[in-house]
Amino acid sequence: MFVGHTYPCLTSNFDSTLGLPPSWAFWLSCLTQGEAVDKACSSGMHFRDSKRKVDYVLAYHYRNRLARHLPGGGQRAPQERPGSPGPEVIELGPLDALEEEKRLQREEYERNLVEAGLEIEKDPENKSQGLSFVRIHAPWQVLSREAEILKIKMPTKKVYEITEEGGILKKLNEIWCKLTEPLQPQVPQQENTNMKSIGTLIANNVYDAAYPLHDLLYQEWARYGVFYKFQPIDLIRKYFGEKIGLYFAWLGLYTEFLIPSSVVGIIVFLYGCITIESDIPSKEMCDQRNAFTMCPLCDKFCDYWNLSSACATARASHLFDNPATVFFSVFMAVWATMFLEQWKRLQMRLSYSWDLTGLEEEEFLCVLSQDEEKLTWSDRMPGYATNFGLILFMIMLTFSAVFGVIVYRITTAAALSFSTKETTRSNVRVTVTATAVIINLVVILILDEIYGAVAKWLTEIEVPKTEKTFEERLILKAFLLKFVNSYAPIFYVAFFKGRFVGRPGHYVYVFDGYRMEECAPGGCLMELCIQLSIIMLGKQLIQNNLFEIGIPKLKKLFRKLKDERTEPKETDTNQSKDPQQWDLDYSLEPFTGLTPEYMEMIIQFGFVTLFVASFPLAPLFALLNNIIEVRLDAKKFVTELRRPDTVRAKDIGIWYNILSGIGKFSVIINAFVIAVTSDFIPRLMYQYAYSQNGTMHGFINHTLSYFNVSHLKAGTQPENSPFAHDVLFCRFKDYREPPWSQNQYEFSKQYWAVLSARLAFVILFQNLVMFLSVLVDWMIPDIPKDISEQIKREKAVLVDFFLKEEHEKLKLIESFIARDQNSPRSCSLRGRSATVPLLADTLWGMGNRKSTPALVSIFWQI
Amino acid sequence: MFVGHTYPCLTSNFDSTLGLPPSWAFWLSCLTQGEAVDKACSSGMHFRDSKRKVDYVLAYHYRNRLARHLPGGGQRAPQERPGSPGPEVIELGPLDALEEEKRLQREEYERNLVEAGLEIEKDPENKSQGLSFVRIHAPWQVLSREAEILKIKMPTKKVYEITEEGGILKKLNEIWCKLTEPLQPQVPQQENTNMKSIGTLIANNVYDAAYPLHDLLYQEWARYGVFYKFQPIDLIRKYFGEKIGLYFAWLGLYTEFLIPSSVVGIIVFLYGCITIESDIPSKEMCDQRNAFTMCPLCDKFCDYWNLSSACATARASHLFDNPATVFFSVFMAVWATMFLEQWKRLQMRLSYSWDLTGLEEEEFLCVLSQDEEKLTWSDRMPGYATNFGLILFMIMLTFSAVFGVIVYRITTAAALSFSTKETTRSNVRVTVTATAVIINLVVILILDEIYGAVAKWLTEIEVPKTEKTFEERLILKAFLLKFVNSYAPIFYVAFFKGRFVGRPGHYVYVFDGYRMEECAPGGCLMELCIQLSIIMLGKQLIQNNLFEIGIPKLKKLFRKLKDERTEPKETDTNQSKDPQQWDLDYSLEPFTGLTPEYMEMIIQFGFVTLFVASFPLAPLFALLNNIIEVRLDAKKFVTELRRPDTVRAKDIGIWYNILSGIGKFSVIINAFVIAVTSDFIPRLMYQYAYSQNGTMHGFINHTLSYFNVSHLKAGTQPENSPFAHDVLFCRFKDYREPPWSQNQYEFSKQYWAVLSARLAFVILFQNLVMFLSVLVDWMIPDIPKDISEQIKREKAVLVDFFLKEEHEKLKLIESFIARDQNSPRSCSLRGRSATVPLLADTLWGMGNRKSTPALVSIFWQI
Repeated sequence: MFVGHTYPCLTSNFDSTLGLPPSWAFWLSCLTQGEAVDKACSSGMHFRDSKRKVDYVLAYHYRNRLARHLPGGGQRAPQERPGSPGPEVIELGPLDALEEEKRLQREEYERNLVEAGLEIEKDPENKSQGLSFVRIHAPWQVLSREAEILKIKMPTKKVYEITEEGGILKKLNEIWCKLTEPLQPQVPQQENTNMKSIGTLIANNVYDAAYPLHDLLYQEWARYGVFYKFQPIDLIRKYFGEKIGLYFAWLGLYTEFLIPSSVVGIIVFLYGCITIESDIPSKEMCDQRNAFTMCPLCDKFCDYWNLSSACATARASHLFDNPATVFFSVFMAVWATMFLEQWKRLQMRLSYSWDLTGLEEEEFLCVLSQDEEKLTWSDRMPGYATNFGLILFMIMLTFSAVFGVIVYRITTAAALSFSTKETTRSNVRVTVTATAVIINLVVILILDEIYGAVAKWLTEIEVPKTEKTFEERLILKAFLLKFVNSYAPIFYVAFFKGRFVGRPGHYVYVFDGYRMEECAPGGCLMELCIQLSIIMLGKQLIQNNLFEIGIPKLKKLFRKLKDERTEPKETDTNQSKDPQQWDLDYSLEPFTGLTPEYMEMIIQFGFVTLFVASFPLAPLFALLNNIIEVRLDAKKFVTELRRPDTVRAKDIGIWYNILSGIGKFSVIINAFVIAVTSDFIPRLMYQYAYSQNGTMHGFINHTLSYFNVSHLKAGTQPENSPFAHDVLFCRFKDYREPPWSQNQYEFSKQYWAVLSARLAFVILFQNLVMFLSVLVDWMIPDIPKDISEQIKREKAVLVDFFLKEEHEKLKLIESFIARDQNSPRSCSLRGRSATVPLLADTLWGMGNRKSTPALVSIFWQI
Repeated sequence: MFVGHTYPCLTSNFDSTLGLPPSWAFWLSCLTQGEAVDKACSSGMHFRDSKRKVDYVLAYHYRNRLARHLPGGGQRAPQERPGSPGPEVIELGPLDALEEEKRLQREEYERNLVEAGLEIEKDPENKSQGLSFVRIHAPWQVLSREAEILKIKMPTKKVYEITEEGGILKKLNEIWCKLTEPLQPQVPQQENTNMKSIGTLIANNVYDAAYPLHDLLYQEWARYGVFYKFQPIDLIRKYFGEKIGLYFAWLGLYTEFLIPSSVVGIIVFLYGCITIESDIPSKEMCDQRNAFTMCPLCDKFCDYWNLSSACATARASHLFDNPATVFFSVFMAVWATMFLEQWKRLQMRLSYSWDLTGLEEEEFLCVLSQDEEKLTWSDRMPGYATNFGLILFMIMLTFSAVFGVIVYRITTAAALSFSTKETTRSNVRVTVTATAVIINLVVILILDEIYGAVAKWLTEIEVPKTEKTFEERLILKAFLLKFVNSYAPIFYVAFFKGRFVGRPGHYVYVFDGYRMEECAPGGCLMELCIQLSIIMLGKQLIQNNLFEIGIPKLKKLFRKLKDERTEPKETDTNQSKDPQQWDLDYSLEPFTGLTPEYMEMIIQFGFVTLFVASFPLAPLFALLNNIIEVRLDAKKFVTELRRPDTVRAKDIGIWYNILSGIGKFSVIINAFVIAVTSDFIPRLMYQYAYSQNGTMHGFINHTLSYFNVSHLKAGTQPENSPFAHDVLFCRFKDYREPPWSQNQYEFSKQYWAVLSARLAFVILFQNLVMFLSVLVDWMIPDIPKDISEQIKREKAVLVDFFLKEEHEKLKLIESFIARDQNSPRSCSLRGRSATVPLLADTLWGMGNRKSTPALVSIFWQI
């Protein structure tokens, strides 16, 4: 169940100043942790001797200078060595020198590895240029030796670990680490600070990458079988880059956070189940003795009906409409704040351990705008206007679709009421609701795809200046459209449905003969809950899972078929037997960015937070979806997509703002759902203000107004009603003056009193929750204390080291100059020392201010 | 009127790579700007020849090694040179070496100045250690020459100026600079980036300070005469340090921001004045023909009264209670957000130009906690408990004081009503209100002083770990207490007064015979306005100005008297004639921190934002106060206090959070003031829901309920009423059912409808304003674009320069080694080059990532 970030429960933490790769710890864990791990450890590929395991891989691109100009160099037989000079003239450019240098460095590094006792296997560089691998195997004796060294070295190492935590906290942490040990993925623990040596080589393009074998990632991450484990975030980041690493870290944290909210949601739901028997209003509603004759639900063809026939929905709605829901809403609002705070901290932690703290987002100019640099306002105007117009149009389209479904519901309900079959008529509501929601869902799914494309097109005609702006604007637009699309029908049910019905004798008609639709007798909350759950589940199942798995597979199949048709039999001879990696990769889908992944999760976050008051099980469904989602995405990234280019990123960018916006928005939405949609406030008001004896007895009666059936307009009275003659008054759910009052059918005093209470609740709820959120935000520091300490100390050490270094170098120069003066050979070098004070000035701008005077005085002493 | 920050309208901007002091620009302005400036330029002190002006001063502490051990060295005659060896043994410690070095550096720097044509005058170093000054004079020919050079140099200088702004914006900026030129203080423009050279010397403690003469600061800043000018922030920062510089910059920006809000406030007030004649409700109230017989205001002794007698207050209250106030509240909420955003930007700008961007707040351990480092939770418990208890007690004390004043008001009003004198009785309300507010004010002033001391004591017993925590906690506590103290009576009037009165025949009694107090017939808003204005003005006048000027003067006087009594005639002989600087400084007050200054302003910010809906003139009064306050504080800092130690600070710390908190709080408070305290919503409701013809006619009648006088309890009927027999019904302001209704005196339907409207308004207002604030926050970037560009480019240049530098140095070493190998003299130096890759690793963590590979490859090439 744990799919979040691997917390720093480092089981081993040793010095790799020898320049060893970071998977030592993993190998050691293989040594020590017995069988369960052994399987994972041994399932990797092997050296050519099929005995020695490949524990780690270094990859690099090579450009073979001599073979470069040979035509079709790649198609030569592997045994043909490229050492022989080619027939063409070879130019030795600066690139070749660099290449040569890199080669030398690689050789030296590999020599060091061999000296350290590791065994390596290399591919022959048999082409003019290409990717080559160095496979590394760590023999048993090396692992044992390192394990020994580790134990000795541990205490002598200068690690800045914050050990100020009290003994209890430390103990708790240890227990936590022990408990979650089986949940930790069996991957090498990364030692970030000690990885500099190989890191430098990679940065210098000497090697392209250093990683353990791919199938480790698959074994320990991209399988449904490991759904309960934490994600090996560091490994993911290594393989896919920071941006994708951050996405999975975020997804993991979000999924983890869904666990407590699911538990609380289930408890709230169970509370509803348990208290259903003791709930007086639903009991009163179901009681056959209370003969509440309700006014007909449609003109002419509908009959008077008894409220007790709606007993089932009333009982069902109690499951969600109970006081625990109010608590749950507050809980979820605080939860959302906590989640965002924790994410900030985790992001900071990752950013520190991934060495991103100093990273400045580089702004790449868009390809689009390169030749249009001096676009003026008037050039951009049409683009913006189109944008504004089209977005407005799209939103209108969404609203029309929602309205269309409403009309469908109204007309179908009316049409079905005409039906002569008894069974059809009795199931009108179920049929209509079910089909309408499905139509809604389909509309949402279709419009979602369209809106994605439209948002992209709109952003392109805006011609944003940089890649980052492009992405941000695209996300904002797509989010706006998809948010409106997904939530419009839900907002309608929550806040508008049943509010513009009018009253008996004075109904509001959409068009001739068709009344505005009402909520079911159980209240709109029940309907909201159905709408929400079907759209949420349907969207998740169809869009997220079916589309995500199905569409790529279909595309793959389609392309395969197309390829086969275009080149029918050519490749038969040599490639089909032993498909090379590039062939396999060609058949994969290209990576198109993380936006759809984030969007899907953010929309889900909206379902979880915005209407949580009406559907406490939403977090549970989200959790179930996400447990699959994490592994599904993982699988997709590892096996279905071409390996994406790694992109460095410091944070999740604009998604954080959107999340925080949804969090804030959810407070007011939940306040309104509880106050306006649910019956919470009327019940409270009845119990404490109107009830004769302080109990809920008589609540149903209190919420129903009287209507004198003789006031029904001509032609709207029920036809064929068997008991029309007995009915004098029918009831309807509203607070209105009775027919015998002076101001008959006006809103009653109760109406206004309840409305006041509802609004007061909104104010109270919103401000309380906002206050709690601010408090949580304020109490949890954005940067974890240990990280901020670490950064501070590292900075100090760095400056210290740097100063020593500088000092030593200057001493060296000084001593040279001194010797130089003794043997006067060349004087031109003397002038160089004048640059030193300038350097001092330069340093002035950087680093720790406190140490700078010391540095400056070093320079001045020269 | 402009007292804010000097915006970067640099009139001159030239290179000072020669190491010249930064006042060139000032001197040049003296050259070019004629007479008006000449006065300021010539009012400085002169060299000993009384001819040459002192244009700039360098100050340094010296420790004269040889004279140090001479007893009473400071009392020697000035002509005795300290060159002769002392009688005691002199130890040459490392400090002396440092001192000697600094002396040499100073001599070199001064030599350079003289070489550049400047004339300097030095004090003889006639004591073992002390402060010495180097006075600099720039002769005419130097100034002219520099002016010439300036014109030539300008275009060749490599300054990263953002010139991307459109032509119109640039023009506008130029016009703005020209318009505000007379408002600019006549002080040297600081050239920050070019000041490194002297900056390095100061940082290195070679010099203590470099500044133009003190009286320039006085002339151009600390005088009331220059109230309309911008503040010379850079000069203030130079003289007092960053922390005080930031305070004055903040105060300046705040005062500037008060200008537009004052203007809008005046317009709103004028709108009230203009529309007063057309205001139907107040006209109806004053109309003698509308004989609204009101119920008596107190039991027994008060008579029925006619509503038209309250005509004056009704008219007055329209001045503040009109629709424009609603707009003003929204305006002020957005204003507060804008102010905070602009402050963030200005802070960033200052932080950049003062070179604070890389500054890390160093955490000084508190003296208090040094020997108590391992305080456990149980040690701290009593402190926290005391804190909690005492703060609660203090808040209770404030509430009791407020309640005491309420009781005073009730009893005095009752007592005065008994009075037989007609004049006393007719002026009851005025007398009581006036005296009560004054009592409130006095209580606030007294408690404020007590609370300040209590907060300090409470923070001390908490034993916070660092100086910063200490300050933050102290500020939070003091703010909490003073905020409650200042605002409790205002909150009472705004939200509680008159709401628990009960109704005629069923009044609420505080104690036997004394009813809860009601608001004046004009509504509570009028009273709130009076309360607010008196407390705000009184607090500002008495506490801020009288206390701030008076108390130090009194203390000074008191200490002088005390001193004279203790050492009656000793100092008569030599010191009183020609008082030295240290004597003068001794008589000044020590600097005790900025907390009181900030506190005063923040509480004022509260007055300006929290209840702005009830008193639109608050910003104006705040502005008037602040124009004085800026110069008063300036004067105090320059002339009344000992020169404070300079403290570096990056921001205004926790004050920002408090300001932002007040800003957020003000939204909900204003929403409630408009909705609940003012008559805005009832009027709106009447006009659009209840009025017969859509006008306000009949509004007064609508808001008054009927009461059957026969329902008055026995003993509470008015005695000695001349027209008691004619009165059947009296009226009172409330929405209640009339006596002839079934539910007599219950809240009527109107009551609940109006209440709903009020609450709906609160929700609407709060969410609208919050949305606007978020929008403003989002639209204004925290870091000004030019600054962020500048920082980015500077960083690039720095890294570039640094790499070149490193490269050059390495080349140097390399060439030495190469030569060394040719003439094999010493081999030990070879090993040093091994440190180079380590340096590369180190650099890995810093600077621009993009350039690092280049750097690394440089190192690898060696």
